[in-house]
Amino acid sequence: MNLVPAVQGKNINSVTGKLSNSDLAGRCLLDKVDDTGSSNEALVFHPVPGIRLGATCAGIKYNNRNDLVVIELAEGGNCAAVFTRNAFCAAPVTVAREHLLTAMPRYLLINSGNANAGTGKPGHSAAVESCKTLAATRGCAINQVLPFSTGVIGELLPLEKIAVAIPDALTSLTEQGWGTAARAIMTTDTVPKISSKQIELSGRTVTITGIAKGSGMIRPDMATMLAYIATDALVDRHLLQRCLESAVKPSFNSITVDGDTSTNDACVLMASGVSESSPITDEDSAEFACFSAAVEAVCMDLARAIVLDGEGATKLVEVLVEDAKTESEARDVAYTIAHSPLVKTALFASDPNWGRILAAVGRAGLADLDVNAIKIWLDDVCIVREGGRAKDYTEAAGQRVMDQSALTIRVALGRGDASTRILTCDLSYDYVKINAEYRS
Amino acid sequence: MNLVPAVQGKNINSVTGKLSNSDLAGRCLLDKVDDTGSSNEALVFHPVPGIRLGATCAGIKYNNRNDLVVIELAEGGNCAAVFTRNAFCAAPVTVAREHLLTAMPRYLLINSGNANAGTGKPGHSAAVESCKTLAATRGCAINQVLPFSTGVIGELLPLEKIAVAIPDALTSLTEQGWGTAARAIMTTDTVPKISSKQIELSGRTVTITGIAKGSGMIRPDMATMLAYIATDALVDRHLLQRCLESAVKPSFNSITVDGDTSTNDACVLMASGVSESSPITDEDSAEFACFSAAVEAVCMDLARAIVLDGEGATKLVEVLVEDAKTESEARDVAYTIAHSPLVKTALFASDPNWGRILAAVGRAGLADLDVNAIKIWLDDVCIVREGGRAKDYTEAAGQRVMDQSALTIRVALGRGDASTRILTCDLSYDYVKINAEYRS
Repeated sequence: MNLVPAVQGKNINSVTGKLSNSDLAGRCLLDKVDDTGSSNEALVFHPVPGIRLGATCAGIKYNNRNDLVVIELAEGGNCAAVFTRNAFCAAPVTVAREHLLTAMPRYLLINSGNANAGTGKPGHSAAVESCKTLAATRGCAINQVLPFSTGVIGELLPLEKIAVAIPDALTSLTEQGWGTAARAIMTTDTVPKISSKQIELSGRTVTITGIAKGSGMIRPDMATMLAYIATDALVDRHLLQRCLESAVKPSFNSITVDGDTSTNDACVLMASGVSESSPITDEDSAEFACFSAAVEAVCMDLARAIVLDGEGATKLVEVLVEDAKTESEARDVAYTIAHSPLVKTALFASDPNWGRILAAVGRAGLADLDVNAIKIWLDDVCIVREGGRAKDYTEAAGQRVMDQSALTIRVALGRGDASTRILTCDLSYDYVKINAEYRS
Repeated sequence: MNLVPAVQGKNINSVTGKLSNSDLAGRCLLDKVDDTGSSNEALVFHPVPGIRLGATCAGIKYNNRNDLVVIELAEGGNCAAVFTRNAFCAAPVTVAREHLLTAMPRYLLINSGNANAGTGKPGHSAAVESCKTLAATRGCAINQVLPFSTGVIGELLPLEKIAVAIPDALTSLTEQGWGTAARAIMTTDTVPKISSKQIELSGRTVTITGIAKGSGMIRPDMATMLAYIATDALVDRHLLQRCLESAVKPSFNSITVDGDTSTNDACVLMASGVSESSPITDEDSAEFACFSAAVEAVCMDLARAIVLDGEGATKLVEVLVEDAKTESEARDVAYTIAHSPLVKTALFASDPNWGRILAAVGRAGLADLDVNAIKIWLDDVCIVREGGRAKDYTEAAGQRVMDQSALTIRVALGRGDASTRILTCDLSYDYVKINAEYRS
C-alpha cells in the first residue's frame, strides 16, 4: 500500500492527486488556527455527496466559536462505529451504542466543551433528551440520532443551550461543512484535523473524507478520539464495520500522547451510498480492498495529526518494535517506551539519552528476555547491541537524529517474527502547563 | 502496628522515642542540603554496632563531593538483598547476585554518578575488577564484596578513579558514617534519606538504621532504589531475607514517581549480630515479629522520603484502593491513577479535577467493572458515587483537600475484599526541567 504521507503546516491548497486504485490520492490537511479556532484560512477537502455538516455556537463552554455540530447521513446510507473501552464511558457513548443496536443513524449530534462523562443517570437522560430534540425537529426517530461529547468531565450537559442551538446547526447543513465542523469539535487542539482522498471504483470516483479532534487524554483503546469519516460509496453495513475496525487498529489504536484513554473516544464511518459506483458487498473483492485501504489511509492521516498536535508536543516519534514473539509483547514494549516520562523528556530535550530507552525495554515485563539479543536504533543509528552501547555508536550520530522534529525508535527483540508500530510525542513544559493551568 | 510518621523539613534534632516493643521509636530524618550535597547540618541517627561506613570523592562525575561509599559488615554477620526486575539490569546487580550465591558479604562498594548499566561485558568486568581491588586491599575474597552503582546509564565505570579512591574510603570507615554515606549516594536527590529506630529485644536495645537514595526513575519492582539497612541484632540468614522481602512490599515496592523501573534498584539488609540480644532464629517468635515490624518501619520511612523528594514533586499523594477482587487488580487501579499524567498535573495545579481520576479508574483494564458500585474520595470528601459526581460534593470541599501538600485518593471498587496502598507525587514543570536539562 502506498500511503501519501501527511503534510504539516500552513497553506496546503491542493487536495487532489491521481485518481487511481493503486495510488491513494489526497493529503492530510492541517492548517494553524488562532486560539479561538476561527482561522480564516480555508481547509481543503473533497465534499462527500450524501453527507452534510452544520455547526453553530451554543455557548456550552467557549464563547465566540462554534461548539455544536450536526452531521447528516442521506437516507439509505450505512454507518459503522467503534467506541472507547474505558469502563467509565461517557453517557453519549452509552446512548450511541444503544441507538446503533436498533436503528441506522441519520444524524450525529456533537458538542465540544463538555464531555457528559461521570454524570450518572442525569447525564444519560441529557444525552437522550438532546437526541429527542433533534429528532423532533427533523421528524426522524430518536434512535436515528447518535450523540457525542468532548470536553471537561463531570459537568452536566447544558441541555437548554443545546436545544436552542440545534435549529441553527440544522439550518447551516451543507456538503461544504467539513472545515467548519473540524474546527467546532476542537478542545485543546491547536489545529483542525481533516483528511480527504479519492479513489476510483468501477470506473467512478469515490470520496473518503474524515475529521478528528484530539490532543490530550490520548491513548485510544479499540477506538479513537472523536473522528467522523464519510464516503459516498455504497457499502454493506457489516463490511463497513469490518473496514472501520481494521482501519482503526494501525491508526487511532496505535497512537499515544499521555497514556490516558478517554471516556469519550468514538470513531464513526458513514457511507451515504449516493455514488454511482457499484455496491461493495463482497469482502474478498478488489473494490473492498481498495476502499478499505483508502479508509485506513484517512485514519492514519488523522491519527498522525492528533499526535502532531499532542498537548505540548514538539516531536513526532514512531516506535517500531520488531522480532517479538507476539504482537502483544511487541505492543507492551512499544507502549512502555512511549509512556516513559524519562524517554519523553529526553526527546523533548533532543538528548540522545539512549540509556532511558534501554531501561524502558528492560522493564516492559517480558519473560526470559535475552538482553544480549536486543538491538535498538535511533533512525538508522544503532545505539544498543550485545547488552550495551553499540561499539560504533557516537554521541554525534545520536545527536543528529535527535535534533530532528520527527524520528523513529526501532527495537529488534531477536525472539520472533511479530512486530508493531505506534506513534507518540515528547513530554514538554507545555504539556504540564496546558494540563495544570486549564481544566480540560 | 504503630508507625511513627516520617517528619519532613529541617532541623530534626531528635531521633529517639520510647524504647519498647509496642511503640516503634525513631523518626525519618530529612534535612535539606545545598546543591553540592555538602550541607553542614547534622543528620541524626543511631549508629549500628558492627557496621562501619566510609566515603570519599573519586571524581566519577561530580566534583567537590563524595561519590564512593564502602560499608563494612562485621565478620559473622548476615546479609539479605533484593534487586530490580528490569531485564536490562546493571552490571553491579548481576555481579552482586552472583557473589551472594557463593559467599556472605563483608563489604558493599557503592558509587554514584555512573550506573554501569547498558555497558555489556566491559561493564561486568569493571564491576568485578572494582570488587577485586577492594578485596585485595582488605584481604577478603572477591565474592565477599558486593558492588552497587547509580547515575547515568550507558557509560563505562571509570575503574582507575575508583581503584585510587578505595583506600581513602576504607580509611574513613566509622560507625558514625551513616550521614556521610547518605549524602554520597545521592544523584538528583535534593535531600539525604535516613531512618533510624531502636527496639528492645530480650531486654537489650537493638538498632535498625537505613539510608536510601532515589528521586527519579522510581517505580521499584520487587526491590527499591539503592537502600542499605543494618542492625546489630543476630538474625538467621534465611529469616533476614524473609524479613526484607516482606518489608519492601508495602514500602519500596509501593511507591512510584514516574513509573520508570530502574536498572539498578537494590536494597540490602545487614545484621552484624554484635548485639547482646538473643539470636533470632524462629520465624514464629515475638522477637522476629518485633524486629520485622521495625525493619518495615525503616523501609516505609525511606520509601516515603524518596517520594517526597521525587523529581519536581510538590505533593505527596497516597492512593488507596479498597474492595477489589484481588490485590493485583487493586494495584492495577492504584498505579493507573498514580501514573496518569493528567491526574499528576491536576495534583500539581491543586485542581480537584476528579474526572481525570474517574477516567483513570475506568481505563485500568478491570473486566466487568460496575461503575455504579465505585466510590472515590479525596481524603474524606466523596467525589464519585453512582457512576458520577457525588450529590453532596462541592468544588469548595474538593479544593480544600487539594490545597494540602499531602492527601489521599481513595477508591472503593465495591467488588471484593482486597486492597492496596501506594505512594506517589505530582508532575510539575520541574520534573520536565530536571529530566530535559540534565542527563541523569
